[in-house]
Amino acid sequence: MSTDAPRAPTRPAFVLIRPQMAENIGAAARGMWNFGLDRMRLVAPRDGWPNPASVAMASGAGRVLDDAQLFDGTDGAVADCAFVYATTARPRGLTKTVMTPEAAMRDAAARTARGERVAILFGPERAGMENDDIARANVIVSVPVNPEFPSLNLAQCVLLMAYEWRRASAEVPQIREEMAGTERATQTEIAALANHYEDTLDRAGFFFPEAKAPSMKMALRNLWSRMPLTRADAQILHGVLRQMVRWKEKG
Amino acid sequence: MSTDAPRAPTRPAFVLIRPQMAENIGAAARGMWNFGLDRMRLVAPRDGWPNPASVAMASGAGRVLDDAQLFDGTDGAVADCAFVYATTARPRGLTKTVMTPEAAMRDAAARTARGERVAILFGPERAGMENDDIARANVIVSVPVNPEFPSLNLAQCVLLMAYEWRRASAEVPQIREEMAGTERATQTEIAALANHYEDTLDRAGFFFPEAKAPSMKMALRNLWSRMPLTRADAQILHGVLRQMVRWKEKG
Repeated sequence: MSTDAPRAPTRPAFVLIRPQMAENIGAAARGMWNFGLDRMRLVAPRDGWPNPASVAMASGAGRVLDDAQLFDGTDGAVADCAFVYATTARPRGLTKTVMTPEAAMRDAAARTARGERVAILFGPERAGMENDDIARANVIVSVPVNPEFPSLNLAQCVLLMAYEWRRASAEVPQIREEMAGTERATQTEIAALANHYEDTLDRAGFFFPEAKAPSMKMALRNLWSRMPLTRADAQILHGVLRQMVRWKEKG
Repeated sequence: MSTDAPRAPTRPAFVLIRPQMAENIGAAARGMWNFGLDRMRLVAPRDGWPNPASVAMASGAGRVLDDAQLFDGTDGAVADCAFVYATTARPRGLTKTVMTPEAAMRDAAARTARGERVAILFGPERAGMENDDIARANVIVSVPVNPEFPSLNLAQCVLLMAYEWRRASAEVPQIREEMAGTERATQTEIAALANHYEDTLDRAGFFFPEAKAPSMKMALRNLWSRMPLTRADAQILHGVLRQMVRWKEKG
């Protein structure tokens, strides 16, 4: 009997091609795991594998390194993938589609959602990716850096791609309200606050001269309604006024 | 005589509050300048200022450090700003609007475009931001990290905010075609290629058995039209076929 349960979409593999510094592999693992990615593939890392310097740098993201797969060449590392993205600053004379990280990771999320396996290639630190590897990729991903300072290091590039993967694949509200144990004040509560201030300030002679009183009152009421007040805020503002009256009455 | 030329929108100030490691200030400068940001403000850096360790780390982004402004407290660092964003993982019991980096930097781009000065606050490495500083900010920015591994370091957080600033403020096409000295083949050129292959393969006995020939020809024509071929690609594919014929004719 076959199990037809739908499988969760496969996360993209991040393929580091001939990385030089072992520390950078650790930093890349951190960047991936920061955004929930854990499929790392390594093509011929210069300083051998496994490497304690990578583990030390990965602190907290060691599981990404534990599960990393090692390959001799790029072809083996992308063999099971239907679509491959190469991160590089310049296409260097190859005709190719160039995507932003955002467009690429949206595309990757759509592909993985329909069951395709995808890989993102990252070249070695100093030299960058060779045309041989770029030609292997379906599209190029280029981070829109400052043209005066286009040098993104390996771990930074991995971090940005992982960040865009999460943006494309996770539902995160753009704006939300953190309500620390309180809730928005109701219109009734705002009106009560407005009345409390208006009445008290009237007694205190605040609305002077009399000709200007209506517009001053209107401005004050408008102020309260413009503020995103919570019930806790309203209680604080009632308290402020009560205390001022108490202080005044002490003489 | 006053000059009424419209001023370019002011870029946001990135305010590092009590940063501990001097190296991290340098790495933050790199992250800012990667995306064209150059207004750094430092509040009481632990190891003093200026600091050679920061300069060494900033390699290439030294101008950001040269222009960095030093302050004793956060209030001074944000004094000229109309709107302040605090980057922090947790609002810690304060009622506050929480934005993603994307929403926050879109908001910042809109504000700076209409002349407001804005600042982004970053807390110290280990401790994170104090509630005192968070309360000073208008909104909180929270990076949607993996809940199992929420540790973003200072330079990573700066990099992501600078990246989102550039996304929000620069017009970068999501997808473009890099055409290395060539252009897309025209329909006439594609048809010529299709004819060349169909005629030659016909002579070579490729379309067999005859009953299947029409559907095989259709499949081949469909293949050419599905490919995003350039003029250079078409020339290569014509050449491939001519060479096979030449080779065959040699016997």
